[in-house]
Parts: sequence; structure tokens; C-alpha cells
Amino acid sequence: VKVTIAVDAMGGDHGPQVTVPASLQLLERDPEVEIILVGLPEPIEEVLRKHSAAASPRLKIHPATQVVEMDEAPAFSLKKKKDSSLRVALDLVKEGTAHCCVSAGNTGALMATARFVLKMLPGIERPAIASKLPTRHGHVLVLDLGANVDCEPLHLQQFAIMGSILSSAVDGVPQPTVGLLNIGHEAIKGNEIIKQAAELLAQAPINFYGNVEGDDVFKGTVDVVVCDGFVGNVLLKSAEGLASTLASMLKRELTRNWFTRLCALPSLPALRRFRKSVDHRKYNGASLLGLKGLVVKSHGGADAYAFRHALQHAVSEARNNVSGRIEKAITEMEIQAA
Amino acid sequence: VKVTIAVDAMGGDHGPQVTVPASLQLLERDPEVEIILVGLPEPIEEVLRKHSAAASPRLKIHPATQVVEMDEAPAFSLKKKKDSSLRVALDLVKEGTAHCCVSAGNTGALMATARFVLKMLPGIERPAIASKLPTRHGHVLVLDLGANVDCEPLHLQQFAIMGSILSSAVDGVPQPTVGLLNIGHEAIKGNEIIKQAAELLAQAPINFYGNVEGDDVFKGTVDVVVCDGFVGNVLLKSAEGLASTLASMLKRELTRNWFTRLCALPSLPALRRFRKSVDHRKYNGASLLGLKGLVVKSHGGADAYAFRHALQHAVSEARNNVSGRIEKAITEMEIQAA
Repeated sequence: VKVTIAVDAMGGDHGPQVTVPASLQLLERDPEVEIILVGLPEPIEEVLRKHSAAASPRLKIHPATQVVEMDEAPAFSLKKKKDSSLRVALDLVKEGTAHCCVSAGNTGALMATARFVLKMLPGIERPAIASKLPTRHGHVLVLDLGANVDCEPLHLQQFAIMGSILSSAVDGVPQPTVGLLNIGHEAIKGNEIIKQAAELLAQAPINFYGNVEGDDVFKGTVDVVVCDGFVGNVLLKSAEGLASTLASMLKRELTRNWFTRLCALPSLPALRRFRKSVDHRKYNGASLLGLKGLVVKSHGGADAYAFRHALQHAVSEARNNVSGRIEKAITEMEIQAA
Repeated sequence: VKVTIAVDAMGGDHGPQVTVPASLQLLERDPEVEIILVGLPEPIEEVLRKHSAAASPRLKIHPATQVVEMDEAPAFSLKKKKDSSLRVALDLVKEGTAHCCVSAGNTGALMATARFVLKMLPGIERPAIASKLPTRHGHVLVLDLGANVDCEPLHLQQFAIMGSILSSAVDGVPQPTVGLLNIGHEAIKGNEIIKQAAELLAQAPINFYGNVEGDDVFKGTVDVVVCDGFVGNVLLKSAEGLASTLASMLKRELTRNWFTRLCALPSLPALRRFRKSVDHRKYNGASLLGLKGLVVKSHGGADAYAFRHALQHAVSEARNNVSGRIEKAITEMEIQAA
């Protein structure tokens, strides 16, 4: 199916240096994709020239005169930067020109502007950020990763429904198992919000597994893990920190001196396969769920390889009509409840 | 300094099979330690015989007729098992016979019984569980790891003071830096509880670093990380899960076939050093802080090597008078506030 992606070409730590080559890579790999690069035409064209490429029917440039800074207050960019690349890319989704917007820009500004431009789906109270994380035998979808610092049980129920739909739509799992992150498997564990959320999740049209603990996340016990944005953000960032700490300690031991370096040589292919299998860049591309339109957030520091994965994730969301499926599920739940 | 440790010999998944050999190892390494093995004399003596050892002036057996099961409700063991090894070991601390109690038993029962037997230090409202985690260049002390599912700002302030004292007492850091776990470094981030806690931490007699994020934990940005027990428990367990997932993936690549196995042979010493440097057993032994007496909790599944580290941690707490130092700091704060 043909899909059009609006790319915030100026977003992220590296702007067009990363967004443009990633877009070119995707166009080459997927002939059914069309990309609209949104931003200041000059720097975009400069990078295109560097890659001996140019605008084409499948690669359009849509001008935007402003750029949202990475450390800017969301309220400021929302008010003062109505012609920013981030805002205009979202406008293209709103008006139906693009199926999904992808940005590596300021998370707070992207979330606030997306809520303002696209609006929430009817029945969904809070947007959530969802992303895949690697597990022993595949991956797990975790949400919320930081959109909400305080969540009520109903919000967690809606996250569970949205996560379940995203997982089944994008990964093709028919009945993904959904776990509620808690500090024990027993139903009596956790605070009041978690206990009430567990009851609501049990009533929701999902395959509710029950409580899961921190170690279940990376073991791959369930397909989807639901938690509030504070816990999810700590989980995500501490995992990134631990993985990079372990990697640097392993490297330190293997390269301690010329002898250990020599000894490590025969294992380099296996070590490279290992590094590839846990490469977090493949998991780049978090979904902003609950909006009337698709938005994918890339890591701000993404390189072209990582940003291309965020683009691919956006294409998959658009092809599988994630937004429409969520709206349908919520409407059906409300009809049943009425 | 001479130290006496009361060991709940029956606690944990393996009971005396682990607690007794670990105690023997410690006695051999540290001539200034005395151990009281609390539990059913017969199984304890059986393991002693197996190791060609016997009770001695430095290794006493103190009988207790009951055993707390690992999955027992804390209220049940508190009421019905007044002669359990766990309870009697705590009684020995209460009456001054032992300086510290070490148990690998049921965490909930240990916490509830310790609060009942020893009571809280005056001025401390909630006990906290604190443990070391490895970082790139050393370790970090994290608390609370699961004693409290809901925390108020004042509790987090008290955790910060207790953690700071434990870190300086046991590790000898004069002014340990203390970070408040949040979802951003800026003071405006996080929920209301975290924002208020940040203000209280800034007023406390500690070296307050400010907010830290999940990735700072394993980077070793600060000496002490403070968070509520829900977040801390998820952090701890997800880190354990991720580390074991990464280890098994690395092993899978290196042992994929006879060729990769052969290639890995020269690197085995370096790989073993890496495994040793991240061996979580060295970090076994969590402190129950805020009580009128010292209690150390070992992982339930600990082996003798891991349990010995919990015993060593208990000895270090006792030698450095952690409980007395915390009481003094809290009293001084209250005098200043009055």
C-alpha cells in the first residue's frame, strides 16, 4: 500500500544531516513510500546534493521557516513557532496530505503540538508514548514511556488497549498478551492505582496476562507491558544506561592489552553479531498513541540508520491503520458499556 | 572491632545448605567475627558435619523451632511463628546479643517482624531497603528498593539522609553525592511529590546533586540514588532481567557452533574477568534502614558465595555503627528545626 510520510527534516541533534540520508535510504528500499521533507529548503537541498539526489515525485520538499530548539519550552514553540518544521509536518497529517509524521525533535514540543494540531481520539484521555525494547527471543512493547507523570487506573486501561492494538497491528500477533508492571505477581501487591488498574485491565477487550515484574520486561514474558510514564521513563533510561555500561566493561576487558586484543580477534564476528542483535538503533521510533493521526518520535541523537528505522516503523503504523483501529476499539467499548 | 552476627540459618531457598558454609567461610576470613546460627539444630549440625566443622566459641547455634515459609503472609508469621529462626535472630539483635541480623528469608515477613521487634528509629517514619548496584567505575547505593509503594516527600528526604550516612559509613566517602531519581534533570520535571521532595533534599544535611535520570544510575553519576519503592523495585528487577538477557545472548553467539566456540577459547580469561566484574552476587546484601538495629536481607536464591557477601556487608554496617549514625543525624536535624 502506498504511504506518505511527513518528516520533520530539521528535528533532532543533527537535523537534515541525518533525516535526509535516512529518507533516501528508505525510498530506495520501499518503492511504495513517498516522503515529504519539511523544513528550511536550503540546508535540505544541500544534503540532497551531497548525496547526488534531488527532489522528485516521491521526495518532496515542503518549506517551513522556523525550527524548534531541542531545549525549548513546549508552550513557547506552540505559541511562537507556527511555521516550524515540526508544526508544519503535523499540519500535513491533520489535512490528510501525509499518513504519519516522524520527528526527532523536542519530545515535549512534539507532544504538545501534536495534541493541539491533531487532537485526542474521542474517548482517550491521555496520549502515551510506546516503544519496542529487545527481549531474549524478540521484543516487547512498553508504554507509557514518559508522556504522563501521574496516571489514573482508567489511563492505564486505555494504554493497555492502545498497546495491544499497536502490537497486533504492527507485529501481526493476533492476541498479544498484556502485563501490568507491578512489584509482585500477586494481585494484592502494589499501590491503590495499580490494584484498580488491574481490575480495569481484566475487563478490557485485551488478552490480560496479569501483573508482571521488572525482570519480566526483558525476559519477554508478555508482548505488551503497561506502566505509568514515570516508571516507564526510568525503566527505559536505566536499561539504556546499563546496556552501555555493560558494553563498555566488556570492551575494556577484551582490549585491556595487546594480548587480550589478539585473543579477541577470532571472536570478532560473533561479538559483532551480538552487538547487532542488541543494537538499540533498530528499536528507534516511539509511537505517540491516542491522537487523531499518527506520530512517531525518533531519538534526538539518532543517526541515519536509527532514523531510517523510525521511518520504517511509521510506514508500518500507517499501512496497518493503527489510529483507526484504536478509535474503533474504544468506540466498541463505549457502546458495550452504555 | 569484634562483631557478632545473628544468622537466620533457615531462611532463603536453600536454608542451612547455603547459610552454614557461607558462615564458615566468613569466620575463616575474619577472625574478629562471631556468628550465631539461629534455627533447627539438627539440619544445621548436619551441614556443619558435612564441612567437618562444629559449634565453637565463635560459631554458636541458637535453637528456634519454627521456619517462616518464603510465600507466607507477613501477618501470619508475625502472629503464629514467634519462635521462628527469623524472629529469634531479630530478638538477639533487640536484646543486644548480636550487632546485626542477616536473613535470606521472606522479605515481607522480615520487614514486618523487624519493625515489630526492633521498632523504628525516633523521627523516621518508614523503613527503606537499600542496596548497592554496579556502575562503570564502582557502585551506587539505591533506595528504596521496595519497602514502600507510596512515598511522601518527607519519606524521600529521610531515605536520602539514611542513604547518605550508609554510603559514607560503609564506603568511606566523606560527602557522598545524592541524586533524586526523576524523568528529567530540570527542577520543573516530575510529579508534585518529586518536586516537593527536591526542595526537602536541598534543605537536608546531605550533598544533594539534584535530579538524576534512569541512565545516570548505572553511569555512576552520583553515590546515592533516592526513589520510591515502586520505582526502585522496577529499576532493580528490570536491570537484573536485562543483564541476564544480555549475558545469555552473548553466550548464544559465542557458542553458536563448534567454530565460534573454538574462536572464543582464547578470550575465555577476559570473558571470565568481565563476568566477575559484573557478578551480582558481590552486591548481595540489602540494608533495612530506619530501624533501631541492623538488619541485612540476602537474595532468597543466594548461593554460599553471595550469602557470604551479605554477611560481610552486615559486618561492615555493624563496625561502622550505621544505626547510631542515622539516629544522630535525624536528632540533629530535629534540634535545628525546633
